[in-house]
Amino acid sequence: MKYPTKIKTNNSKTINYANRGMSLENDLNITNKYYFDNNIGVIYKKPTPIKVVSVEYKNYDHEIKKAFYEKPSTTDYNGIYKGKYIDFEAKEVQSSKGFPISNIHKHQLEHIAKVIEHGAICFIIVRFKKLNKTFYLEGEKLINAINTLNSSSIPLDFFEKNGYIIKDNYNIRIDYLSIVNILYFGGNNENN
Amino acid sequence: MKYPTKIKTNNSKTINYANRGMSLENDLNITNKYYFDNNIGVIYKKPTPIKVVSVEYKNYDHEIKKAFYEKPSTTDYNGIYKGKYIDFEAKEVQSSKGFPISNIHKHQLEHIAKVIEHGAICFIIVRFKKLNKTFYLEGEKLINAINTLNSSSIPLDFFEKNGYIIKDNYNIRIDYLSIVNILYFGGNNENN
Repeated sequence: MKYPTKIKTNNSKTINYANRGMSLENDLNITNKYYFDNNIGVIYKKPTPIKVVSVEYKNYDHEIKKAFYEKPSTTDYNGIYKGKYIDFEAKEVQSSKGFPISNIHKHQLEHIAKVIEHGAICFIIVRFKKLNKTFYLEGEKLINAINTLNSSSIPLDFFEKNGYIIKDNYNIRIDYLSIVNILYFGGNNENN
Repeated sequence: MKYPTKIKTNNSKTINYANRGMSLENDLNITNKYYFDNNIGVIYKKPTPIKVVSVEYKNYDHEIKKAFYEKPSTTDYNGIYKGKYIDFEAKEVQSSKGFPISNIHKHQLEHIAKVIEHGAICFIIVRFKKLNKTFYLEGEKLINAINTLNSSSIPLDFFEKNGYIIKDNYNIRIDYLSIVNILYFGGNNENN
């Protein structure tokens, strides 16, 4: 895998357009819309799971009167890129020291392990907000880190060494598929 | 594609265990759990999209006090099987004459066309409740039917000729992946 060298030589050139106070979710929505509109890939955020308790029929519409948020059992994002199944979770963290493992639920980790076993391209996107750094980390490395680090948090240093910085881009915002393209499809670091 | 002949010769042997008053969604939940537990594939129903209007913080929990159901812009189900991206919509219909096209929203049709373009295995599952028949119809054939039939409904006859009956099965309920296996992976009609 030649990518880490490649990306480091190019990194200094990237200009920090995006991430100006926008949430990671917002940036990903813009990114996924760009991918869809430009026929690059079809990737969506799944709706937040909500347990509906009571509903009223009102003004020709069903109004939900009582409901609760549920913990997701899968990752938030999935879809297709170049014929491959893509699956990922995205998290913003406040700490600049590391990524608290409690951010990912047990069911989500099981899901990540399972889809990898079935041939998925699976990863997490972690943004360290205060550092304005957004990393791509392969699901395999995430699981390995959790199993071996013996800590409640994956240190920033681990991301610096094992992850890939997702470059900011005005149109695409956080162009994570460019990293998928390099890691799995022999692409270079310039574009898709 | 030799499948339609194969399935017809075997059809008479299938025993009607399932579909005894259970909803299609329920059957699919059981099916997908079976696939997950037996490591056949990882396929989930996406949560219903809900627009949350107001939330109260109550008893250490967020209680949603006002919300509305939204129209889904994608299909309800997706996931991975044998390394391939799987995507489908499932509908139960009351009519025994045909499948009203209005059951599938415009955005969903756009989604189906897009994922097919990117290499997905995409289809719809339609259950004619009164007939107790559940069909698998390829997304390509669905789009083609809508574009050419010039009707508000796809007749049952079209499904009989162009779709595949999903056999009932006590454990797997509606074993749609056995059809995917035959259509795309050269499987036979006996099992996965």
